[in-house]
Parts: sequence; C-alpha cells; structure tokens
Amino acid sequence: MKLATVRGPDGSTVAVRIDGDTATELGVPDVGAVLRGAELSAVAETVGTQHPVESLDYAPLVTEPGKIICVGLNYRAHILEMKRDLPEYPVLFAKFADCLVGDGDDIVLPPESDQIDWEGELAVVIGTRVRRATAEQAQAAIAGYSICNDVSMRDWQFRTREWLQGKIWADSTPLGPVLATPDEIPDEAYLVTTVDGVEKQRGDIHDLVHDPVQLVEYISTVLPLNPGDVIVTGTPGGVGHAREPQEFLSAGQTVTVTIDGIGTLSNTTVAERSSERGAGAGQGVPEPVAQGAS
Amino acid sequence: MKLATVRGPDGSTVAVRIDGDTATELGVPDVGAVLRGAELSAVAETVGTQHPVESLDYAPLVTEPGKIICVGLNYRAHILEMKRDLPEYPVLFAKFADCLVGDGDDIVLPPESDQIDWEGELAVVIGTRVRRATAEQAQAAIAGYSICNDVSMRDWQFRTREWLQGKIWADSTPLGPVLATPDEIPDEAYLVTTVDGVEKQRGDIHDLVHDPVQLVEYISTVLPLNPGDVIVTGTPGGVGHAREPQEFLSAGQTVTVTIDGIGTLSNTTVAERSSERGAGAGQGVPEPVAQGAS
Repeated sequence: MKLATVRGPDGSTVAVRIDGDTATELGVPDVGAVLRGAELSAVAETVGTQHPVESLDYAPLVTEPGKIICVGLNYRAHILEMKRDLPEYPVLFAKFADCLVGDGDDIVLPPESDQIDWEGELAVVIGTRVRRATAEQAQAAIAGYSICNDVSMRDWQFRTREWLQGKIWADSTPLGPVLATPDEIPDEAYLVTTVDGVEKQRGDIHDLVHDPVQLVEYISTVLPLNPGDVIVTGTPGGVGHAREPQEFLSAGQTVTVTIDGIGTLSNTTVAERSSERGAGAGQGVPEPVAQGAS
Repeated sequence: MKLATVRGPDGSTVAVRIDGDTATELGVPDVGAVLRGAELSAVAETVGTQHPVESLDYAPLVTEPGKIICVGLNYRAHILEMKRDLPEYPVLFAKFADCLVGDGDDIVLPPESDQIDWEGELAVVIGTRVRRATAEQAQAAIAGYSICNDVSMRDWQFRTREWLQGKIWADSTPLGPVLATPDEIPDEAYLVTTVDGVEKQRGDIHDLVHDPVQLVEYISTVLPLNPGDVIVTGTPGGVGHAREPQEFLSAGQTVTVTIDGIGTLSNTTVAERSSERGAGAGQGVPEPVAQGAS
C-alpha cells in the first residue's frame, strides 16, 4: 500500500491512499494523522473522494513530524569518500518540520550559502509507539518507507563542530512522494540520485551499516518513537562535497531521488529571490512552502 | 510578568499568569498556546480561576515546542574548562519535546548511562515569528526567559561525533518553572546550579559569547523562529564532566538552577526502576512524565 499527503486547491492538505492511477482521500490532514489514528490494515478499505494520481500536488509526507532524526555516515561507500572510519554507533542529528517540502516543490537556495549539496536517503516512518524496542518490536513499529533529499549547506555544516546548522534551512528538505509499506520494497532495491538527469549517487539500500530495524532499536533506547516520527537513514557515496572538483547545486537544477519500490522524489532548485526577512508575516501562520519561487 | 504551565488534578495542563502568591488560569493549555494566540500585553488583563502559587504542579513551560535549539560552549569559563577555542559561530544542537519535564518533576536516570551530568542554562522563549531578524526585531521577538537544566548523558554524547544522542533522553530535561518577561531580568543577573545544596556552577548571564538577541538573529537566518520555540543558551563552567575527579548524578539527588529575576528550577533524580520497554503503551498517547518514579 502507498499513502501520500497532498494539497487541495485552498492549500489545506489531506492524506490519500494511492491505488494505481487513483488517489482516495482518507479524511485526515496528513499521513502522520493516519498513523496516529488507525491501523494501516483499516486504511486499505477506506472509501473517499478520488483523484487521478497525475493531478496530485504533494505536500511533505508528514507535515509536522514530532521528531526527524537523521543518520550520518551510514553507507560504507559514503563513509570512505568522506575519509572517516566506519562508526560503531549511528551518528545522529536532527531536522525540523520547517525544513520540509513535498515532491515537486522548489528546493529554496538561500543567498547565505554557496555550498548546497544533495543527499538522497531512505526515510523510515514510524507507525506505532515504541521505547527500547526489540528487533521484532522495531520491525513492527515501521509503518513504511519514503524518500528524503537531505539537502545540506556544507559551508554552514562545517562552521562548527555540530552539523545541525547546515541541515535545517527552511524549505530545503524534500520528503515524499509516498509512504510505501514494507511489503512494497523488493529484496533488491537501489537508491539513485540524479542532478539534471546525470546519475550522482547509487546505493544498495540493504547495505546500510545500521539498518532501519537497528536504528529503531537504538534510537528508541534513548527516547520513545511515536507515530509519524521520521528517521532518515543516511546517504550513499557521490555527494557533491566529496567530488573532485566539488560540485554544488545552483538555481534551476532538477534533483531526483529514486528508490525501487517507493518511487521518485523530484524537485527543482530556486534561488531565494527576495529573502524573507523581519518580524510578523503572520504570527502562528505556517510559512507558505517555497515562497521564494519565481 | 510571569507565566507558567501547570497540571490540573486530571493531568491536563493549563497556562497561568503568576501575580505574587496567586496564579490565574489563562484558558489555554500551555505557555506556547498563550504566545501563539495573543499579545502578552492582553494576557496581563486576563481574568480566570485562581490558585495559590504554593499549590502549583508545574509542567514543562512549553509542552510541545515546535523547535528546541540548544547552544553549546557559550560561556567563556565553560569553554575554557572543556579545553576548546572560543567559537566564532554558535554551536547548535537540538532537543525534542519528549525530553522535557517540569519544575518539581523527577529527572529520570536511564540504566544505559552512568555519566549523567547537570547543565544549568538560560532559556529564551520566542513570542513572535521572525526570519532573518535584525537585532531590533530579534529583541522584540523574545517573549521572555526561563531556566533549563540541559541534563547530558556524557557517555552517549561522546560516542559519536554528534552530541545529539547524549542530549535527548526521555524525561531528563527540566524546563521552567516560569517564563519571565524581559523587564523582570535585572541588569546584574547570575545563574547558579546546586546539587544537594552544594554550588556547582555560577555564571553571569550577561557574559555569553553569543547573547540571546544575537542567537535569534543567527538562528532565524537559517529557519523561521515561531511562537513557543525555545533556544537554550549554553552552560557556564562547573559541569561534572570537567571536574577532577569527575562527578555525575546518582539517584536521589536534588539539582537546582536559579537565575535572578526568573526563579529556581528544582528537580530530583530518580533511577528508572523498571525500564519502559516495548511496543504500544498507548499509541499516540503522551508518555506520563517521570513514569520511572518510585
């Protein structure tokens, strides 16, 4: 089964189930709300307003995740290209909901960075609450998988000894287009990132140093994982920062991340033309996605 | 003016305004909701059910902050004791709502760590949305100040090159007891941390390398800051990890953090007696605070 979060004409969002060419509304605002509200098996039977898939305007898969925990250095090839040792423990950092955009949305390039890089990644979406999960409980807590482009401002990432400030720029992190339940993922599955049609990354998603079940076990030791929480599992080799010469994103490029069994996350980079600046702009009102778009 | 979030007999929370010995209910569930909903000047006039302050059961000041961004290495004395250089840029990391407890709640000591340390800190609470704030806008966006004890599991903090996993243990980070508006903070104000009555840390809160206004300017360059977001501004010298010999927290100790003009945040450490473990325990239901208490 595949689920998504899409926007209606008024900008509000709704979760949908995707069956072939048809999307069926599920009556709640996003996939996070689906996971908090119901067993996925019940969602398979939900009846609602239908739309052709080709007409969908995707929002971030989960619009307000309670937590987004990212893993660095988790594919052997990428660890080696970054000239680091294989980690005994997963290296963890965070993102926030303000960073997320949907499939097809612009990746906003802020004027403050000139080292903006791609990182195609497998995302794990939590379906049930777990703490100190065993392997079996961790497997059962995974509602499904999605795709994340962990776009990274390398100059800011390496300004200090913590990566966070290079990882949390507004409207820069695509997440989607769909959640695919575990049965959708084939035994052989690759992640491929392209920039303007040129392949940049290729990784075997079954070749992680710390796999999704191990990550749920590890992270849930520290704190509970809840429905709608997202774990982003790290990127394979081929990022721009590690190339010789280095390559970074500029405005007007299309970046795709494809994972077998899930689909393709495709976004175009747009320079932030007039920086959002100042106070107000609607206290408590969500920022429009990709508001720097031309 | 001082505001707090307190628990009622049924466990639900409500925001209150504190005037001397009296707390007045504000009709919304927490201080985050106060900040999202109204100008603070209007809150000064709100009429509601009253309670004696001595009877209050404090919850985390903001129960579900959209973001908690912490600053490392921001007092000169602490930077020197950790044997690091003064940072040109603020070092940023994250916490999550799952970590927070209120004044008077237990600090839960998980069995997986034996290097649990105190870090008394000044917390900044955002009142209005800002992006790329000027100094003047940053000042106006600060609703007020609170106190955080950024309890840190040092063994986990230093397992990998990112600190996050030592900073996000469930039910380990006290935040409160109150938000004090900026006019409450005296020109001379110190932060003092004690453990079982013995002073461990003392810092001049006006001696930060990056002060609250500069932090709002810096962080809001990266992403919007929204009402209820919390910035935790770093700890002064005197943490247990840097002492010779090192000192860490054990069960049954009382840790207080006092800041002039705000008040005292006091919590007792409790060993997690029977680890919460497994799946379920209420899908989507918030975890009881300090559920490991004896």
